[in-house]
Amino acid sequence: MRKIQIGIMGSAEDLNYSPAALACAKELGKEVAKKGAILVYGAEKEYSSLSTNAAIEADKNGGITVGVTPGNKKEIYGDFKPTVLIPCGLEMGGGREFTLVLSCDVIIAIGGGSGTLTEMAIAYQANIPIICISGYPGWSKKMANKYFDERKRLKCLEAKTPKEAVELAISRANV
Amino acid sequence: MRKIQIGIMGSAEDLNYSPAALACAKELGKEVAKKGAILVYGAEKEYSSLSTNAAIEADKNGGITVGVTPGNKKEIYGDFKPTVLIPCGLEMGGGREFTLVLSCDVIIAIGGGSGTLTEMAIAYQANIPIICISGYPGWSKKMANKYFDERKRLKCLEAKTPKEAVELAISRANV
Amino acid sequence: MRKIQIGIMGSAEDLNYSPAALACAKELGKEVAKKGAILVYGAEKEYSSLSTNAAIEADKNGGITVGVTPGNKKEIYGDFKPTVLIPCGLEMGGGREFTLVLSCDVIIAIGGGSGTLTEMAIAYQANIPIICISGYPGWSKKMANKYFDERKRLKCLEAKTPKEAVELAISRANV
Amino acid sequence: MRKIQIGIMGSAEDLNYSPAALACAKELGKEVAKKGAILVYGAEKEYSSLSTNAAIEADKNGGITVGVTPGNKKEIYGDFKPTVLIPCGLEMGGGREFTLVLSCDVIIAIGGGSGTLTEMAIAYQANIPIICISGYPGWSKKMANKYFDERKRLKCLEAKTPKEAVELAISRANV
Repeated sequence: MRKIQIGIMGSAEDLNYSPAALACAKELGKEVAKKGAILVYGAEKEYSSLSTNAAIEADKNGGITVGVTPGNKKEIYGDFKPTVLIPCGLEMGGGREFTLVLSCDVIIAIGGGSGTLTEMAIAYQANIPIICISGYPGWSKKMANKYFDERKRLKCLEAKTPKEAVELAISRANV
Repeated sequence: MRKIQIGIMGSAEDLNYSPAALACAKELGKEVAKKGAILVYGAEKEYSSLSTNAAIEADKNGGITVGVTPGNKKEIYGDFKPTVLIPCGLEMGGGREFTLVLSCDVIIAIGGGSGTLTEMAIAYQANIPIICISGYPGWSKKMANKYFDERKRLKCLEAKTPKEAVELAISRANV
Repeated sequence: MRKIQIGIMGSAEDLNYSPAALACAKELGKEVAKKGAILVYGAEKEYSSLSTNAAIEADKNGGITVGVTPGNKKEIYGDFKPTVLIPCGLEMGGGREFTLVLSCDVIIAIGGGSGTLTEMAIAYQANIPIICISGYPGWSKKMANKYFDERKRLKCLEAKTPKEAVELAISRANV
Repeated sequence: MRKIQIGIMGSAEDLNYSPAALACAKELGKEVAKKGAILVYGAEKEYSSLSTNAAIEADKNGGITVGVTPGNKKEIYGDFKPTVLIPCGLEMGGGREFTLVLSCDVIIAIGGGSGTLTEMAIAYQANIPIICISGYPGWSKKMANKYFDERKRLKCLEAKTPKEAVELAISRANV
């Protein structure tokens, strides 16, 4: 059996997330690693993000990490390198996010601007469960306990703590 | 100079749009054709949509239509065939929508479930202007006069009639 | 019924094609337009190609042209603009070529380095007929009258003149 | 530093590869694992391949494997599951192969019909080194010691044994 692949989707640096959101993202990464799951995230070339910080923390805790990056090159921001790096050949802003989300058995969203929203909407359409950390501003807060449309497929589930989010993710993952 | 490529993005059949929304979509298609613009839409294999109806009407009025369809086959729903058919090689639910939206100089959204939301979020990230018809339920109504995130790139512009929407689209298009 | 979408696939400028190959490519474009077919080609940002020259000539002769370009931007090389421009969201070198070839009912190859070879191999796998102009160096010459593998799907058909190539293309197109 | 990601690209089952080619593919997988490299391969839904057999053997020898599969689903052929599964959202026949190859620091080809040829041509265009096992029929044999075009980027390097191929791959990998 495959290990569960959990996507951590969250705000990029330019959205100025709070120290509390950052701490939460790191805790998410640690929890994913502790549970023996694989952490999947979007690796960018020019900046960091809540997701990248989660990945770094998962790595520090012995977890396997998979970075899905846009374009056709293997350069990514910073010194951290994921266990596996996937340049998907698609641009950022919808394409890269598509490969990224499809590679998850479940996603956890935290904060989130337009990129995270795109990832959540893609997950919804692919019937991939979505866990929303609700304590920080962004689409993850706005969509907690809601459906993306009248089709009412999978409701975005709310989690208040990283631990709760990862436990919920593991219980709902499509593996 | 290229003709303006206007994307019409709207609910699929299974979202049970109203006869009024359908009439509006058709009027959008007619207006796009009358203005000499190219209508770009998502063509599906299994069902119709507001967008497909707009395309049919544009075609009836002598307009050029471009259908972007998921997967690698050229079969699409119904008897109508667009002037140009683009099977983009990407699945539906984010990937096909990416090629679709990037191929537009501006998009007009009407109604809209998770698919239309994905298209709007992709357009926002690519700085492609978004015109929201606000009279029918869906993401197009919810996002009218709003930004997708705190980056405040392009605001989703509200239009109340098809004529207003197409005029606004033409005035804002990136060509 | 849709018009036939004929792809013209050929060497980029840096392969130093001959004046004779260039003249042949232009003639291909003219023939496609005269037959009322749509010419599909790969539009690049940094350079011209045999395909772009074919498109320019089709346009001069009143034909509809569709340029499929890599990435997410609408800038392309030179002053010529196709009737429809499709930035597919995929990088060049396999991805863009995938959307490009899938959008053709048949392809005609002329000259051809690794990019054209990729396009031919994609067409073969999608059962899209391939016509090879055999008079100029490149993969189009090498593959004339051959199959791409032991599965022996569609044989690459040889054509000696642009007129013969376009007639053969129209007779074999999957529409 | 990342571990080296080595792609194993080879014939699918329907090309009727020989028992000797199969044994070689398995040995390739074993060598990749023994060297501590990550094995990247194309996982299909309907059939096995030389690549899948290499991955199974790498897994048996404690290696990390990454399967890149077409479409948006996580079902793959057989009981074997790779360490990481990436459904890339692109169809097979060029698109999936694009994400697959871009995710490699170097590729080793064995046998090979049109799919493997596509992968080799993509690698050439992305300046990803290509090692060709030359003892079995297919594009890997045909291209050994050759360039894909007159641009003469990276020559396809010949290897006669799995051990030699993996050592050569590691020495040439872009990491």
